[in-house]
Amino acid sequence: MNTKAKGSKGERELVKVFNENGWVCIRAAGSGSSRYPSPDVLAGNAMRRVAIECKVTAETKKYLLNEEIEQLRTFANKFGAEGWIGVKFPSEPWYFMMLEDIENTGKCWAVSVELAKRKGLTVEELLDKHNADLQRNI
Amino acid sequence: MNTKAKGSKGERELVKVFNENGWVCIRAAGSGSSRYPSPDVLAGNAMRRVAIECKVTAETKKYLLNEEIEQLRTFANKFGAEGWIGVKFPSEPWYFMMLEDIENTGKCWAVSVELAKRKGLTVEELLDKHNADLQRNI
Repeated sequence: MNTKAKGSKGERELVKVFNENGWVCIRAAGSGSSRYPSPDVLAGNAMRRVAIECKVTAETKKYLLNEEIEQLRTFANKFGAEGWIGVKFPSEPWYFMMLEDIENTGKCWAVSVELAKRKGLTVEELLDKHNADLQRNI
Repeated sequence: MNTKAKGSKGERELVKVFNENGWVCIRAAGSGSSRYPSPDVLAGNAMRRVAIECKVTAETKKYLLNEEIEQLRTFANKFGAEGWIGVKFPSEPWYFMMLEDIENTGKCWAVSVELAKRKGLTVEELLDKHNADLQRNI
């Protein structure tokens, strides 16, 4: 399976998880090829909307372009959604990073497996972010 | 150009119009092939979110399955978006119909060119629905 196919498969898994937990979800067509900002996945329920840039990688560190981060920020602000970076490393679950938690290398942005494990939320925690926040504050 | 390609082209035109008017917009991948509800286009700005089932047709009347309407209604309700049917007839602009304005044939749902012209909003009116509503009430 090529990188694009792995990315689509990973995104479809997320669509399934969101829907099975009472959210609804839309996966973008041709994301990355459009000149207009669009996240890969946009999910919502009665309370929250989350716009996710999804990255499936075979490496242990994933780099993101400034433009990708800027487009996600623009979309999230205009739409009224939370902006998240979702990263899937080999043999790891999806981790979801807030934009302020990813590493700025100066030229671009990066998420390592270590950073994802330390700062990222699992999909279950993302779905239930309010309770996850409460537990971190205890 | 086949029907699917015409549909995608029509949806991309809408994405352009929304973006050029200060909205952001996501076009669904593989819509219709997923078992989970997903509109073809989901657009939003600071105030509103609109979920649109898009139909491009070469006929003068477009039929929609009960399931399509139900899935749009489900998505819109769960996401907190307005649900709209967008129909593009030959030599006509896009018209946008509220779900309560489409014709129930008993077995399915339908929008004719005449109905679209009478009850539908143009994309400009959809973008500026609040003002369009005010003008109708004058």
